[in-house]
Amino acid sequence: MPLIVQKYGGTSVGSPALIRRVAARVASVRASGSNVAVVVSAMGDSTDRLVDLANAVCARPGPRELDMLLASGEQVSVALLAMALADLGCPARSYTGQQLPVRTTSVYGRARIESVGVAAIVSDLAAGLVPVVAGFQGVAADGNITTIGRGGSDTTAVALAVALRADECQILTDVDGVYTTDPRVVPNARRLARLTFDEMLELAGQGSRVLHLRSVEFARKYQMPLRVASSHAAGAGTLISEGDSAVEAPIVAGIAFNPDEAGISVVGVPAGAVVTHALLEPLAAAEIEVDMIVLNASRDGTLDVSFTVHRRDHEEALRLVTAAAAKMPCTSVGGEPNLAKLAVVGVGIRSHTNVAARLFGALAREGIAVRMVSTSEIKIAVIVDEAQLEQGVRALHREFEADIGKNP
Amino acid sequence: MPLIVQKYGGTSVGSPALIRRVAARVASVRASGSNVAVVVSAMGDSTDRLVDLANAVCARPGPRELDMLLASGEQVSVALLAMALADLGCPARSYTGQQLPVRTTSVYGRARIESVGVAAIVSDLAAGLVPVVAGFQGVAADGNITTIGRGGSDTTAVALAVALRADECQILTDVDGVYTTDPRVVPNARRLARLTFDEMLELAGQGSRVLHLRSVEFARKYQMPLRVASSHAAGAGTLISEGDSAVEAPIVAGIAFNPDEAGISVVGVPAGAVVTHALLEPLAAAEIEVDMIVLNASRDGTLDVSFTVHRRDHEEALRLVTAAAAKMPCTSVGGEPNLAKLAVVGVGIRSHTNVAARLFGALAREGIAVRMVSTSEIKIAVIVDEAQLEQGVRALHREFEADIGKNP
Repeated sequence: MPLIVQKYGGTSVGSPALIRRVAARVASVRASGSNVAVVVSAMGDSTDRLVDLANAVCARPGPRELDMLLASGEQVSVALLAMALADLGCPARSYTGQQLPVRTTSVYGRARIESVGVAAIVSDLAAGLVPVVAGFQGVAADGNITTIGRGGSDTTAVALAVALRADECQILTDVDGVYTTDPRVVPNARRLARLTFDEMLELAGQGSRVLHLRSVEFARKYQMPLRVASSHAAGAGTLISEGDSAVEAPIVAGIAFNPDEAGISVVGVPAGAVVTHALLEPLAAAEIEVDMIVLNASRDGTLDVSFTVHRRDHEEALRLVTAAAAKMPCTSVGGEPNLAKLAVVGVGIRSHTNVAARLFGALAREGIAVRMVSTSEIKIAVIVDEAQLEQGVRALHREFEADIGKNP
Repeated sequence: MPLIVQKYGGTSVGSPALIRRVAARVASVRASGSNVAVVVSAMGDSTDRLVDLANAVCARPGPRELDMLLASGEQVSVALLAMALADLGCPARSYTGQQLPVRTTSVYGRARIESVGVAAIVSDLAAGLVPVVAGFQGVAADGNITTIGRGGSDTTAVALAVALRADECQILTDVDGVYTTDPRVVPNARRLARLTFDEMLELAGQGSRVLHLRSVEFARKYQMPLRVASSHAAGAGTLISEGDSAVEAPIVAGIAFNPDEAGISVVGVPAGAVVTHALLEPLAAAEIEVDMIVLNASRDGTLDVSFTVHRRDHEEALRLVTAAAAKMPCTSVGGEPNLAKLAVVGVGIRSHTNVAARLFGALAREGIAVRMVSTSEIKIAVIVDEAQLEQGVRALHREFEADIGKNP
């Protein structure tokens, strides 16, 4: 019997009526002859409401207690979904992250999954029960409850699917698949039937917020096929799997963007990798993800180091880098909070050398200045001012329209 | 350094502002030189709102899932209180029942505490931290989350105090102590400064809803002094401890009552303890508490068995007893859902033989029929029609007014 792991996000379980609808959908998968395990997020805006409560109680909620608080959200949704399933004649059992356990690192708010215990779930599946697992949460080795960050339920689902050796991991959400770019910005954006892990990784990493980046990394690492589809409508959605080299790939899979970038520049430090390491290491220790990094060697032998972080981390990153730069010769440290990233993604890019030229041409015609550039085999990304982001997305989608998303 | 366990109920932590007030009070206990561990219930009506959600999702929420759902309520309040304490410079750590662990039996919704793990709490106290423990919830040996029934947070607090060998367990609530009877029924009811465990047990057991019955049993068993006081006003409240036989006890501690009784009568079964056991055993198996039991032997050698249960359990109890009676010769089985209990409680009753006569006289003058009677060394309880309950409470408070609550 095939085994499918399904994940439903907060908007899909935002009310009792929606929970009953999700239960009916899970029951129909069971009835069609598949085994199914379910991962759910907290109901609708309940995580935001819990954060509001914390902020009403104190100025700076402690991270351990914030994770304890937030983890209650999924505990509510898993229990309600398990009840609703039982009510449809589909016996189910809910589990918190602590119960399975979903073992994580100890970094509150951004923990990483280390392992998923599946003994209870395997025995439930054998007994014909549907296990319903709380996403987003886990437990550290010291027994403290952790959360794995916003969007982390996707990662929980993939980790569970991998641990169970499931046939497919389905992310059921409020969109019906992965698009060539955000349809809110480009109305004629199209749904992609298939794409590769690498393409999805670039699209997700660049800010197409359909799937959480770490969940795609995880799926790629273990070759777990991922399907993104609508939680409330029928349809095959988008299947993300390993690329088939026999198939002629399209040039471009989509246009990705992320409006939440912020930049930090350190000017005039001594050249050498040891300096770059000294500047970036404090960020790694604080679990702040550094995105684009540009090194620029001056003729005087000094180095300018520029990089971007999520805007949320900008203030702390600037503080840490300023402190690190104070320990070395350095002309200045500056921050730019309002940047955005824009990228053309596709496995075809590696063999079509004119993509970069077309990208710069399309942006230049719109008068959009490119602040930083980063290229990979399947992506060309640029940093622009946030105010010009949407204009840039539309320009690139128009430029590559004929080449986009023509995969089978 | 003295160690106090404080328990705050749902109304005391019903909003962020109230949680901050509780935090300030806990911090002041710490500042006064006592160690303190805190037990809290879920915020305000959050348990009711969770039950409403469950009922909106399905017709009959499964008991395992209901406990999983309800336990999320205290997880929210402990995290918020720990944050608020830290914000006041009083570092704190929250714990769910599963984390300590609070080990319970596996009867969902009515589990009994078997043990409380205090290793984490002892180490927190030694490190100057305030442990904040979720009341009402625990974990069964199979790892499933359980709840110990409404009002169970009192029991959690006493069990924790006993496990920690605390000096006192304080139940901070929305009343400022234990009264001679319910002031809503008898406006001139008075607060008692002290009473014995036995008296409190009868008062609580008979329905004075200040303290949960099991918490008092637990406190008496381990001789843990219990103090009931207001969570929002100063005052010593009521201290419940072992009676001091050197002190001349007052005749009557108070008038207790419980409006939620229901009766079941089995008429014409064969005499003998084996029959009574056969009738009551199914109730014990279903964890339904049987309160008053009256056996009445007829001259024809058959037996009438009458007893009362909580009204909530009446329907199920009647079903179980009817099934048990069907297996033996039996004239009839009947139920009366609308009964109430009324009792005079006091350690002085054992040496004052006219209390019963005065009780029956006072009720007779009001035209109140007594349906069943039960006596103990410190209590005389009667069952009456629910409609006549409040009239009876006022009559008995008036009758014993001069003898009530005159303890130091």
